[in-house]
Amino acid sequence: LLADRGERPPWLVLDAGHDCAVVDGATLDLSWGGPTLTVDTLVQGVHWDEGFTPADVGYKAVAVSVSDLAATRAAPRWMLLALSLPAAWSSTDREAWVVGLARGLAQASERFGVYLVGGDTTRMPGHGPAVVSITLGGAQQGAPRARSGAKPGDDLWVTGWPGLAGAGWAREAPPAEAIAALRRPEPPLGFALALDVATAGMDLSDGLGADLPRLCRASGVGADLDAGALPVHPALGTSGAPDALSLIIGGGDDYQLLFTAPPAARPEVERLASAHGVAAHRVGRVTAGDEVRLVGADWPEPLFSHFGGAR
Amino acid sequence: LLADRGERPPWLVLDAGHDCAVVDGATLDLSWGGPTLTVDTLVQGVHWDEGFTPADVGYKAVAVSVSDLAATRAAPRWMLLALSLPAAWSSTDREAWVVGLARGLAQASERFGVYLVGGDTTRMPGHGPAVVSITLGGAQQGAPRARSGAKPGDDLWVTGWPGLAGAGWAREAPPAEAIAALRRPEPPLGFALALDVATAGMDLSDGLGADLPRLCRASGVGADLDAGALPVHPALGTSGAPDALSLIIGGGDDYQLLFTAPPAARPEVERLASAHGVAAHRVGRVTAGDEVRLVGADWPEPLFSHFGGAR
Repeated sequence: LLADRGERPPWLVLDAGHDCAVVDGATLDLSWGGPTLTVDTLVQGVHWDEGFTPADVGYKAVAVSVSDLAATRAAPRWMLLALSLPAAWSSTDREAWVVGLARGLAQASERFGVYLVGGDTTRMPGHGPAVVSITLGGAQQGAPRARSGAKPGDDLWVTGWPGLAGAGWAREAPPAEAIAALRRPEPPLGFALALDVATAGMDLSDGLGADLPRLCRASGVGADLDAGALPVHPALGTSGAPDALSLIIGGGDDYQLLFTAPPAARPEVERLASAHGVAAHRVGRVTAGDEVRLVGADWPEPLFSHFGGAR
Repeated sequence: LLADRGERPPWLVLDAGHDCAVVDGATLDLSWGGPTLTVDTLVQGVHWDEGFTPADVGYKAVAVSVSDLAATRAAPRWMLLALSLPAAWSSTDREAWVVGLARGLAQASERFGVYLVGGDTTRMPGHGPAVVSITLGGAQQGAPRARSGAKPGDDLWVTGWPGLAGAGWAREAPPAEAIAALRRPEPPLGFALALDVATAGMDLSDGLGADLPRLCRASGVGADLDAGALPVHPALGTSGAPDALSLIIGGGDDYQLLFTAPPAARPEVERLASAHGVAAHRVGRVTAGDEVRLVGADWPEPLFSHFGGAR
């Protein structure tokens, strides 16, 4: 899809291979400026189930895009909403659903400092599914953080509790913390904007097992993930239990920050994490070569295929 | 949906009530700038049928958003693509479809000067439908053209041939010109960007019968649409025939410009239309009050309900 786009314009700083597109307004022309842009789509039955209220859907639709901007180090500013609603819904149902969705959008907008500037509503034939797509634009805070700057010897960090949201999908009766993480993700925006010592970073959204190889590939490095250092939220059970580990590696929907930084930056990372009330965990290190390995755990075969295939 | 958005920020020049959202970067901060933004979604089975090639879908998805930017007087610059594809499609079918879609996107990108800067692909359960959503950002060329500036006494103008694309939907064996207008819309971008004498303007996308009352309501005026002055494309049949008239008034998918301008500006409008190879038709005038009327034709009852209800 990207091969046909023609010559890369000089004003494009960061593009579709990253979480956000960054445009340099000064290069393009002064009247335009450089917003940082991202789009994310949630589909009924794929990205949300009956457990979600419409407000949860609205909140999450914004939060997942905020997570992309945070990774790139842009402060959210405006959003556009593209909404497709099933024709089979009664007008009463539709209205109630849209009111709920709008409530969730407003809650997330207030939380993350976003303003809804426009949108489009279309009809889906029959019973749908409903689709909510958010385009978010932000103001770049300093140089964009890319996936491509990690250096061998850097520490590997994650924020939050990877796997917790995944437990909200995977388990029969998920704990309340897992349900909250799944339906109301809280990307570490303030921390991510302030963090200026990272060499590379990305939004953790498809699980460590899928996202870490992407970061390594973009940086031309490998990584050793230390199983003993992975943070295990109490709601996931005993540290090192296979079920918890497979959620941490293979779960998704975290909307946290995965980043690398030199060892000398540890005090600064910890200071910023503490200042912003974020749990930042050092979980391994960047290596030369292209192997992405899990060190210190027996790893069940099915999920191991995510690893070792960084190229 | 819009009621919950909180206090309107000072940097928002034009918002969701218009075809585009316009942000003033200078007011917000200098590092950001002021893109003009729009989003449009095309749904399989609603906005396109089996007659469309995937390339037609891609081309049209861009063109309908270009039409919004043109109305607001912004030059298209970048786009984001949100694509949802049915899980039931085979990988071969999916790949072929995406290659076709990309070809259409590239054709429209080259035609209108747009660059694809990012996107998101999601899965639709089962057989879909497929959904293509485009967010387009542009550079504002002078002050934004709004729907709200029309004055009593102004002329009412349309570009192109309203109803021609509608004939592509409505008729059993549509003429080739109607099919082309439906599948490959050509918004009058160059003309719309150069046009600096309009008092108000909007994208004509839902038919004159739906869009003219919107412009009038936004401007707090009425309008007399002169049936005898409406341009009838030869492919629509004899001028004044009921079928042609109902397509011109009630058809949609035109993606042309509806605008108002003072009578003194007629020579300038005609000069620009000629310079840009655009058919610009003077089709009525703006009136005081709030009535939107069709003058000079017997008008069949069912569609008349679009009119007279400007408030």
